[in-house]
Amino acid sequence: MALIVQKYGGTSVGDVDRIRNVADRIKAVRDEGNQVVVVLSARAGVTNELIARAKSLCPEPSERELDQLLAIGEQESIALMAMALHGKSVKAVSYTGAQAGIFTDKVHTKAKIKMVNPKPITRDLSEGKVVIVAGFQGIDEEGQITTLGRGGSDLTAIALAAALKADRCEIYTDVDGVYTSDPRVVKTARKLPEISYDEMLELASSGSKVMQSRSVEFAKKYGVIFEVRSSFNHNTGTLVKEEVAYMEQVVVRGIAADKDQAKVIVSNILDKPGSAAKVFRGLADANVIVDMIVQNVGRHGIANLTFTVPQADTVRAVKALEPVLDAIGGGQVAVHEHIAKLSVVGVGMKTHSGVAATLFQALADVGINIDLISTSEIKISVVVDLDRADEAVRVAHAAFKLDTV
Amino acid sequence: MALIVQKYGGTSVGDVDRIRNVADRIKAVRDEGNQVVVVLSARAGVTNELIARAKSLCPEPSERELDQLLAIGEQESIALMAMALHGKSVKAVSYTGAQAGIFTDKVHTKAKIKMVNPKPITRDLSEGKVVIVAGFQGIDEEGQITTLGRGGSDLTAIALAAALKADRCEIYTDVDGVYTSDPRVVKTARKLPEISYDEMLELASSGSKVMQSRSVEFAKKYGVIFEVRSSFNHNTGTLVKEEVAYMEQVVVRGIAADKDQAKVIVSNILDKPGSAAKVFRGLADANVIVDMIVQNVGRHGIANLTFTVPQADTVRAVKALEPVLDAIGGGQVAVHEHIAKLSVVGVGMKTHSGVAATLFQALADVGINIDLISTSEIKISVVVDLDRADEAVRVAHAAFKLDTV
Repeated sequence: MALIVQKYGGTSVGDVDRIRNVADRIKAVRDEGNQVVVVLSARAGVTNELIARAKSLCPEPSERELDQLLAIGEQESIALMAMALHGKSVKAVSYTGAQAGIFTDKVHTKAKIKMVNPKPITRDLSEGKVVIVAGFQGIDEEGQITTLGRGGSDLTAIALAAALKADRCEIYTDVDGVYTSDPRVVKTARKLPEISYDEMLELASSGSKVMQSRSVEFAKKYGVIFEVRSSFNHNTGTLVKEEVAYMEQVVVRGIAADKDQAKVIVSNILDKPGSAAKVFRGLADANVIVDMIVQNVGRHGIANLTFTVPQADTVRAVKALEPVLDAIGGGQVAVHEHIAKLSVVGVGMKTHSGVAATLFQALADVGINIDLISTSEIKISVVVDLDRADEAVRVAHAAFKLDTV
Repeated sequence: MALIVQKYGGTSVGDVDRIRNVADRIKAVRDEGNQVVVVLSARAGVTNELIARAKSLCPEPSERELDQLLAIGEQESIALMAMALHGKSVKAVSYTGAQAGIFTDKVHTKAKIKMVNPKPITRDLSEGKVVIVAGFQGIDEEGQITTLGRGGSDLTAIALAAALKADRCEIYTDVDGVYTSDPRVVKTARKLPEISYDEMLELASSGSKVMQSRSVEFAKKYGVIFEVRSSFNHNTGTLVKEEVAYMEQVVVRGIAADKDQAKVIVSNILDKPGSAAKVFRGLADANVIVDMIVQNVGRHGIANLTFTVPQADTVRAVKALEPVLDAIGGGQVAVHEHIAKLSVVGVGMKTHSGVAATLFQALADVGINIDLISTSEIKISVVVDLDRADEAVRVAHAAFKLDTV
């Protein structure tokens, strides 16, 4: 008998038929003699509907009230799932975030989990019940409802798996697992049987949409091994865990492309100590997330700074730079949105040289220009023209033999 | 400055435009310098939608899970109303039943309020906030969500008015107040400026759909004076309160007809001590609510029992009677659903004779047969043929001069 935490996303509980299908899956796992805790999202679409109604009443709704409102989405899912299980003669009980003892800080709409009290769930499990928990939500010490922000239901599942010392944690989604690259772009992309937390994190921050970084970080911190798999079939998924010895044989694990980035060029600034610091302080104060940074110092003490930001942040970035440039003695700002960031990820890079050379040669062979370059211990990212991004991914995927390894 | 509790029903918060209208009403009361606590129902239709989805997953959903599910209806209303008020620059905060400190017993789907902790609401009121509370719901001592059953939001409002020692309690509904009779049936029906708790209770149990009895009973027990009025206009409504001296001048306050009753006749039973007791014990054990009862003893020690039950209970009643009749030595059961119960209500009856005579004469004058008769201190009810029920109401309304008094 194992204790298994399963998380199902919004498309998996999108209507009563899908709820019934998921109930069948849960029942099957239960009937094998396992204890099951299920974390659910709101059914797909509900959250956006509620936000639209909220904004029609108040353009910038209070975050406290938004949390009161959005929490009902998961509460609907859990009660209906409990009933669906009852309809199949499976004992089950639903818990809101508050009832499940998921305590958070007070930061509405993006709260952090501070503590999980596993007692009520443990008691119900010992009575043979399947426990259904509302994902994405918690409660602060004053009894206010909070929500955890994007990817919050994954986080709930991983936090519960940690608190309950679960044997398995399964994150069900609409993809089969983690692939060497996006299968819609690279026909020969393969599903990875396993991947390390660090590789998963680099992929998450490189445009792979499977999971949000914070859930993976949480899993890494608490050593929760989890599997990403599909709720629409019974295929084995991808196991995400600490890196193990044999993983190191593989140099490159996956290739991701992020097409939602923009490149910002700040040119003709005086190359004085502190100029760059002022530029990035100004951007940080405006909550702009800066990724790749390159500085060129030209002749006559004139410097250029180039960096990438999310496309959604470009207007804010340009606005934040105006007073900074005035303060440091001038300069111009230009934005290029027609770019993509290609990332090659793999823990094997740490001990293998030549990964950068292989990547650059592969792109050069087909005439794709590389713009910015940045590297971490287990990732190399390059900026290329948006029109050739998919081709670049395919070329790199082949160069690292990801379709055959 | 007064402390005012207002309750708005499901049609008043049916869409964003209506929510905005109610927010305007609340703001107007607030701007006059009053403290305002608002109790809201789920928007019209939501509860039935949720129940339909629940039943499609499980024909007899668990009452605990039904409460988890149904509670989201009011939670949506309160968060949206708080946002609507914020959109009009009015400080406001929403509370679920649990957050508002409404503690109940553990009886899911029809919980009783045990205690209201007024402290969190009092604190927010003193900070100048309008407090929006989810009606119909509470929490038990184990943190389980409970709901209060039909008319639960009215009950929440009256319980809060009692706990907060409110100066006024206003129940907004889709009718203007309490009328001498149903204005759709009696064109000359008049709105009553005030009515006693007891009269309101008799009207509620006689087919008037303005309010459920238990809310009125609760108000009577705690001496909460409340006003029933419409949220679609600014007319004065009807004040419900303890009876006062001048009320006694009026003999009859109102006429109601209940068309959802059926008549059950149990005939040819042996007139032995204990037979009737066994019949009604059997019905009570099957949770059938029996109203008017008449017994005729015929010749040869053979008796007939006649009584009324809600139409929804007739099948259950007949089923419950089968074993009873076997036990007491035989008898037949017949059901007549084509009836209506007409009730004449008024505290003045206590000290005036002749009310029954006036009623019977008025009906006789137009040839309406009276079937069963039952009386209480302030009510006389008769059963008439369903086809002539509306006519009977109009005739009685005129006989007691309710259109002119």
